[in-house]
Amino acid sequence: MEEQDAKRIAGYAAVDEFVKNNQVVGIGAGSTVPFCVERIKQRVDEEGLSLVCIPSGYQAKQLILDHGLILSDLSQHPDIDVAIDGADEIDKDLNLIKGGGGCQLQEKILASCAKLLIIVADFHKESQNLGEYWKRGVPVEVIPMAVVPVMNKVKKLGGNPVIRFGVMKAGPVVTDNGNLVVDVDFGIIQNPNELNEQLTRIPGVVETGLFIGMADKVFIGQADGGLHTIVRK
Amino acid sequence: MEEQDAKRIAGYAAVDEFVKNNQVVGIGAGSTVPFCVERIKQRVDEEGLSLVCIPSGYQAKQLILDHGLILSDLSQHPDIDVAIDGADEIDKDLNLIKGGGGCQLQEKILASCAKLLIIVADFHKESQNLGEYWKRGVPVEVIPMAVVPVMNKVKKLGGNPVIRFGVMKAGPVVTDNGNLVVDVDFGIIQNPNELNEQLTRIPGVVETGLFIGMADKVFIGQADGGLHTIVRK
Repeated sequence: MEEQDAKRIAGYAAVDEFVKNNQVVGIGAGSTVPFCVERIKQRVDEEGLSLVCIPSGYQAKQLILDHGLILSDLSQHPDIDVAIDGADEIDKDLNLIKGGGGCQLQEKILASCAKLLIIVADFHKESQNLGEYWKRGVPVEVIPMAVVPVMNKVKKLGGNPVIRFGVMKAGPVVTDNGNLVVDVDFGIIQNPNELNEQLTRIPGVVETGLFIGMADKVFIGQADGGLHTIVRK
Repeated sequence: MEEQDAKRIAGYAAVDEFVKNNQVVGIGAGSTVPFCVERIKQRVDEEGLSLVCIPSGYQAKQLILDHGLILSDLSQHPDIDVAIDGADEIDKDLNLIKGGGGCQLQEKILASCAKLLIIVADFHKESQNLGEYWKRGVPVEVIPMAVVPVMNKVKKLGGNPVIRFGVMKAGPVVTDNGNLVVDVDFGIIQNPNELNEQLTRIPGVVETGLFIGMADKVFIGQADGGLHTIVRK
């Protein structure tokens, strides 16, 4: 219950500070985002805000529809005023690991279209260096024909790659874009920017779950009901 | 006929110099590649070469099967000894534009797994700077949800983007990976390496048709029956 309260505190505070009338709002995925959409809906009803919402994927789209908000997409609204999203880990410099849900590509596209990227999370997700908390590795989306050579190449970068398998489907997880996810354990990541550039340079890598220099502010709900925020320097 | 002869000269010469017994050979696409496969088949029959062939896509796979060669893939053979492929334009530094056939992603994956990348082409394709001959623009493979924001972002890099449409299918061309192709005209490209890095950094761009520093030798068949080769410095 503490964790749910922490998520609500973070989600509400982010929406209250950053969502304004007549905006295009990007909605990401993760367990804290439903509280953001709940708060957006309250403010639309109470304050009469006029908003257009752009989802990063299936979960966000359903949240928007379930709350009766206005749904659009990046073809109609390629410029987003503010995107609100979760993260799997957040370091002291606002770098992120995302992709535990396999949607890091759509989320990075959304973030890249947003003037502001606001991250909401609970107290578990904060660390000094990426890799301290999130032990499943960096999620890397890979074109299926390239999965073995890409795994060989990330090993040369010092990573330990595992193809992600799920449940309720034989074989590996397939993303919304028809690709595979390779989770690559690099231990504690000292230079996430360099690692991200090395990974994205490999042909067959579509995108990584490392979000470097993209987040503008993070709202981290605390176990004691408090709120910790970090703003990009 | 001159052009066909030029393609045959280039294709045969490339195979004769680079294909050796017990190799894993990558087979790309384009109008010169069939002459390479024809020559490979002759040498398998005459010299008893033992080869495994890895195709970049549908056309190459059919060529391998039609000639009775041994077919494999990158999961079984992630390390290719030599890949032979065509190109749409080749500059003086062996940089390439590829992707007129929409297969630049698979071809770049194949090339990235090859110890040697050998390019075969006819005399039309050679130029001083990329963009002098190939006027359709740099083929960029894009995740469908990102196509409008990616087009906006490449305009800021000075490009003129057009979504590729084909025939025999309503709507845009869809690649073998389920993505779209945006052809981006940058005029004459002075710094192809920098442009490629700028493009691939855009979230939603899967890969570009700029092949920088990848080709090791090009074989260019001439109209007069001669052969021009360029070797990487």
